[in-house]
Parts: sequence; structure tokens; C-alpha cells
Amino acid sequence: MRHCDTLIAPRWCVPVEPSGVVLDGHAVIVTDGKITDLLPLEKALKNYQPSVLIERPEHALIPGLVNAHTHAAMTLLRGLADDLPLQTWLREGVWPAEKRWVSAEMVRDGTELAIAEMLSAGITCFSDQYFFPEIVAETAVDLDMRAMVGTPVVDIPTSWAHDAEEYLSKGSDLVHDPYAEHPLISTCFAPHSISALSDEWFTKLRVMADQLDVPVQMHLHETAQEIAASLEKTGKRPCERMDELGLVNASLLAVHAVHMTDAEVARFAEAGVNIAHCPRSNLKLASGIAPIARYRAAGVNVAIGTDGAASNNVLDILSEIRLAALLAKVSADDAAAVSASDALYMGTLGGARALGLADATGSIVAGKWADLACVDLSVLNSQPIYDISSQLVYTAGSGQVSDVWVAGKHQLDNGKLAHINTDELLDRSNEWRDRIAATTH
Amino acid sequence: MRHCDTLIAPRWCVPVEPSGVVLDGHAVIVTDGKITDLLPLEKALKNYQPSVLIERPEHALIPGLVNAHTHAAMTLLRGLADDLPLQTWLREGVWPAEKRWVSAEMVRDGTELAIAEMLSAGITCFSDQYFFPEIVAETAVDLDMRAMVGTPVVDIPTSWAHDAEEYLSKGSDLVHDPYAEHPLISTCFAPHSISALSDEWFTKLRVMADQLDVPVQMHLHETAQEIAASLEKTGKRPCERMDELGLVNASLLAVHAVHMTDAEVARFAEAGVNIAHCPRSNLKLASGIAPIARYRAAGVNVAIGTDGAASNNVLDILSEIRLAALLAKVSADDAAAVSASDALYMGTLGGARALGLADATGSIVAGKWADLACVDLSVLNSQPIYDISSQLVYTAGSGQVSDVWVAGKHQLDNGKLAHINTDELLDRSNEWRDRIAATTH
Repeated sequence: MRHCDTLIAPRWCVPVEPSGVVLDGHAVIVTDGKITDLLPLEKALKNYQPSVLIERPEHALIPGLVNAHTHAAMTLLRGLADDLPLQTWLREGVWPAEKRWVSAEMVRDGTELAIAEMLSAGITCFSDQYFFPEIVAETAVDLDMRAMVGTPVVDIPTSWAHDAEEYLSKGSDLVHDPYAEHPLISTCFAPHSISALSDEWFTKLRVMADQLDVPVQMHLHETAQEIAASLEKTGKRPCERMDELGLVNASLLAVHAVHMTDAEVARFAEAGVNIAHCPRSNLKLASGIAPIARYRAAGVNVAIGTDGAASNNVLDILSEIRLAALLAKVSADDAAAVSASDALYMGTLGGARALGLADATGSIVAGKWADLACVDLSVLNSQPIYDISSQLVYTAGSGQVSDVWVAGKHQLDNGKLAHINTDELLDRSNEWRDRIAATTH
Repeated sequence: MRHCDTLIAPRWCVPVEPSGVVLDGHAVIVTDGKITDLLPLEKALKNYQPSVLIERPEHALIPGLVNAHTHAAMTLLRGLADDLPLQTWLREGVWPAEKRWVSAEMVRDGTELAIAEMLSAGITCFSDQYFFPEIVAETAVDLDMRAMVGTPVVDIPTSWAHDAEEYLSKGSDLVHDPYAEHPLISTCFAPHSISALSDEWFTKLRVMADQLDVPVQMHLHETAQEIAASLEKTGKRPCERMDELGLVNASLLAVHAVHMTDAEVARFAEAGVNIAHCPRSNLKLASGIAPIARYRAAGVNVAIGTDGAASNNVLDILSEIRLAALLAKVSADDAAAVSASDALYMGTLGGARALGLADATGSIVAGKWADLACVDLSVLNSQPIYDISSQLVYTAGSGQVSDVWVAGKHQLDNGKLAHINTDELLDRSNEWRDRIAATTH
């Protein structure tokens, strides 16, 4: 008999790796925050003496979901300005509210709300892109959440930095210092989009990213207008310009990538670029439908992101992978395109790969961190059960997530957040709402 | 002080009629199954002595959702055959299972599971199209659920009827006899689709529907293939053929209507045809995206349906109206198309209108049946709140539905089904699953 911290005994286990496998009556063993074993329950009970035994007899255990793109603090702007044309939404809704209200305090409270929401929905890792990234990192550490923290880079003044030089300098302070060896936090540069910087600053950013060996993520080919504007201004499509500037490489996470030519997709595949597909945001802002069956067929890794709560409006990867699978079918004109199992991959290991974290998270494999989510399939809308992957992707709502562990810490226990005071958090959220609403027309 | 049966005191009330109104601190008064008053809470507490007082201080009360198209009993086939091309799905998945297993008992158990699921999700009325419609009606009556029961009409033998003549005769027995005056049940003819009947039988069906004064609902223009096949066989598009046969009129509920020319949309508007839009089913079977902003702009009433659980896979109108609003934006290339408030209309009063039940249900108006749903907006993913309609449509999951009343009967009470034994129901569902799975490859 060996000691272990936690023995989790779900009815089913979907490790995601190897692909398509569903284990019945298996147990996951967790010690020192890591997955140390995955074996038949009977054997597990013989071999291990756990400090904590978690039995979930009607549940499926999956890798924690990965939200490959969000702006966490924007939870505080959720629903502030819906159903508006994109430019009105930005110019009259989001930007004035951000200009007036974004601060370290706002980012801390908004990020905390986002993390609480994401944990409740089975998400154990998120990739963020917002102002005050040092606060995002601090908040993730405080709440024991895994995060890829993108430091924003633009060439306009905000409450966080003044110009491209200051953004890059503050960003590089963050990326190469306090979190270099942190088990939960990774960092990257996050230039907003192609219009954020001049060629000169993009080049400086690339050199810095290479030197510090950190990834780059940016909104790319999100809308047809973005491409048209780039063509008009530079004679080049955004991908082409980024490629010339040396940014199209395996360190790039291209967010959205809604409109791509076959040649661009082939170039991404060759260069090892990852795509963060944000299907619901792309619908809500009428950006388009990214043809992800085509991207996957070309060999591009596709991850799934929620985008910010101002354009979604929930941080819920489970419903996002369902939508991704459904939209892939209609856009490929093929009901067999992107199966439930493919969708689950994109929401877990595909996300981890896209963030360069595939060794740490994204599948239930011994040696990885115990980032896990448990989904209750006993509820009416998931019954009866023929196929576990189908039920997870096509029927389960985030409300069915019962348990979540991040690096072995039991964050959601039987539907309740174990370490976050939600009453107090909602009080703070409502204070922000009152302030923000008072200055919005 | 007047007596009333129930006084419901939600934080917010969205009556849907008048459009766009959100009432804060109002109460709904229910007596003898009907809504008798809607007034400020303070006044309500002074004027009424309720037998039951329901306080829901963080909730929005909305009209019960209307599922304008489903095949309820197919819940027992949920997830049996996913991610397959449409023809494989039908020929190797659904049809063999139906041929082997559809019976009065299967329809009763499957419909009961569907009703339990729909009540849990805030749905108070559904329009059904399946074999053994007399059992569907009986089950709805037994469980006190509002239903529009479509009697299937095809010209192939099944376990319910032998040929078109028998379908029509059994159908007409149902539509003009036992439920003529029933407060919960309406009936209609439901020829499966244009390929179900010859011109001669469609004509007989129309005459019978006219004589009995019942509506007709059918799958129409669901796929491009259906239209191509019709053109090849008859030289006519399905709408055109139906119009010539006299079926394009205000009694017609056209289910799906994914592919429509402007002239066909104009003809529907002129004739008063209603459309049941089933967005998730249309994506999952790769049928296409119905451009509903265009239909609505032309003056066609659009209702929302889930379709059956074999092609969806949940009976959840709340997530379906969200998807409808999102897809409308991308298909219209306009983020302002189909607002949250429009989406809520389609899922309630639009549905009631489409079923000819707008006098009975679909909005919170004195004189209508008390078909109501209460949604808990205190959960993290719906916080903070700027706009109630936005939160309902873009954030709330069916798990947030706390209470449901059908004709004043409190069916879902604080998240629990009050009158259905779900353990016993799930046992029966699992028995069906075991039998069906044993005969499926």
C-alpha cells in the first residue's frame, strides 16, 4: 500500500490522450499536485491509501478545460453594450468604459470574478490578454489558477502604459522575472492586433520575444474589415505582413483567424502556428465562422477560447466546444466534421499545446499536473447514455461540472467553490457595476 | 383584500408583451391556473391574500418557453448515432432503431423523459411530431404539460399505421375527438415532409385539415438536397408544390425553412405561414443556417424549436434562442441583428403565435394561462447585471431555471421537479438504452 493525497473514482474517465479512449471504473491518483497513476479502481483501492477519497459514481472525469483566449477582467463589462454593430460596440460601449474605469483594482476584481466563473465551469487554465497583466498574474497565483498571462502591447496611452516602449518594457519586466519558474504562471507578449504597432515596434517585440523565449499572441484575421484595411494601408494581408516581420512561427498564437486563404493555412501549418478559435464571439460580433475542419485537416492545431465576457457573454469552454463542433459541421457542409471527441481535444490538450503547456496540462496522464474536471451526467438532459463523449460535448452544461482540481487543489467540490468567498466577490462586482453604469448612456 | 392562489414575487419580470419591457419589483397573481394580475409588489401585498407566496429575489420571471418543434420520444435515442453524415445517421442510426423499437410504451417513456427535461429547462409548451401521437397527448395530460400534438402522416408502414389512409384516419380521430376542448392539448396534422405523400394524399390532407380546422406542420426546405430532389422529381421547389396544393396558408408551420428565396419568403409573409427555426439541429446535421433576420424583416413570424434529441442533443430553448440570436448576426453580417429581446420573443410569444396559441400562452398578460418560468440570475456567469434581457439570452443556462408553472401548477420548485419521480423515470430510460444499444452496431 502506497500513500497518495487524493484518489478520484469517477464512473468514467476520458483522458483525451490516447485519443477517443473512455475508461469505465478507473481511478486517478494524485500526489503533490500531480497525476501519478491512472488504473482500474479495484486495483487502485488495493494499491493506494489516499488521504482523501472522492467518489463520483455518475460522473465523467476529464482534463481541466483550457480557455485559450480571454480578457478576464471584462467580466465586469458583461452585457454592458450588447446587440450593437462592432464599431459602435467598441467606440460607444467598451472603449469609453475601459478608458474611464480600467485600473489595477478593476482588473483584480474582474479577474477574480472570471476565475471563479471559469473554475465553476471546469476551466483550469486560461490565457489572458488585458491591461495590468501583473495583477492578472497575482490574482491567478492568489486563487491557485493556472494562467498564461499576456502582456498587452499597443502604441496608445492607457492607464497601464504610455507608449509602445513602456508597454514592452513593463511587459518584459513581467515575463522574465517574477514568474520564470512559477508552476502555475506562464507569460507572453500580446500585441493587440496588426494595427496596434508599427513595423518597427513589431520587429522590436519579436526580437525581445526571441531573446526571452516567450510566445506571442494576437488577434489576427478576426474580421474581413481588418484584412481590407491592412491591404489598403500596406498592400499586404495581415498574415503576410506578420510573416515578413518574422512573427509567423511556432511561438505565435493567432487568435480568431476567421478569414484565411488556403495558402495562409498552409503557411500556418508549416510554421507551427496555433489558432485560438473563439466561435461564440465571432458570431456575436458578426465576424464570421472560422472553417476549423479545414484548418485541422491542414495540420494546424486549433484551441478554443471564450474571448472576453463583453463579447460572449460567458466564460464557458464546455458550451464553446459544442458550438465549435456544430459550426465546423455546417461550415464544412459535413455532419461528420469535428466529432465530439475532436471537440473535447480542442478544449483540453489542443489548448494546452497552443499555450506551450502540453507537458504540464491538457490530458490525464501520469506526470502532468492534476488539472481535472468532473462532469455529472446523471441529470435529465444527459440521459440515457450511449456515448460518453457525445454526452459531454452535445448535452452537458457548465452547471453539470461538479468538481475541479488545479494542480491537485480541490477548487470546486460538489458544485461549490471551496476557496473563494462568492458573496463578497459578487458584492464587489455589483459595486463596479453601479459605478460603471452610472457613467454609461 | 382578494384571495389568489399564488403570488409570485421575482426581482424582475419580463412580460415579453409589451416588447422590451422589464419590470422591477412586480408581482404576478395566479388564480385558477390563469394570470389574473401583474402589478407592483407593494400593491400586490396590500391587495391580495395568496394561498402560496413565492419570493424569488434574485430571479427574472419570464413567460414559459415554447418549443415549437420536437420529436419528444427521441430522447431515448439521444447520442445513439452522432457525428455521422445525414444519410448514414438516418439509414444506419435512427431509422433502424425506430423500426425496431418504436411502440406505444417507448413513446410514453421517451415523451415523459422529454417533458421532465423540458420542464426543468423552463419550457411549458411543446409542439410534437412523432408516432403514437395519442400516447404523446395522454402523457402530456398525465404530466400537466401543454402540447401541440402533431399526428404523423406518411405513406409507408410503421408500427403505428399502415398507409396514408390509416395515418390520416387515425390522425383525424385524434384531432377532432378527445382533446377538442382540452385546456392543455391542441392537435394538428404533421406530414413528415414533401416526400412523405403524393399530391393526391396532400390534397386529401388539406381538405381534412380545413374541415377539422386544425393546423399543419411539416419539415420544409430543411436541406439543399431536399430542394434539389424535388426539382428533379417534379420540376418544382417544395414550397412551390405545397403552394399549388393549397398548403401554403396561415395554418402552416414550416419547420426548418433553412433555404428560401426572397420570393418564397415574401409568399410566406403574405400567406401568414409561421416558421419553426431549429438552429442547433440545422448545424449538427450540416443543413445550413436559416437567415432569420431576413425572414423577420419580411414579416414572417419565427418560432424556435429544438428538434429531436437525436439531432441536437438537448431540449433546451434557452440555449437555442441564444444560438438563434448569434447565428442571425453572423448570417446577416450585422451584430445588431436579432437582439436579446427579439430572441426572447421568438422563444415565447413567437412560438405561441406559431402554434395558434397566442391567446393562451407566450406572454405574461392577465387572462392567459399561468405558463411561467423563473431564472436565477445570481450565479457567477450572469453577474454583474446591466441588462436583464442580455443576461437571460446571452448568459443564462437551463440549469439556472429555478421554477416553472404550467397553467398555474408549480411543476419545478426551486430546481426540483415537484410531480415527477425522476429516479424511476431514469431507470426506465436506462432499460430502453440497454435494449436499444444491444441491437445497434
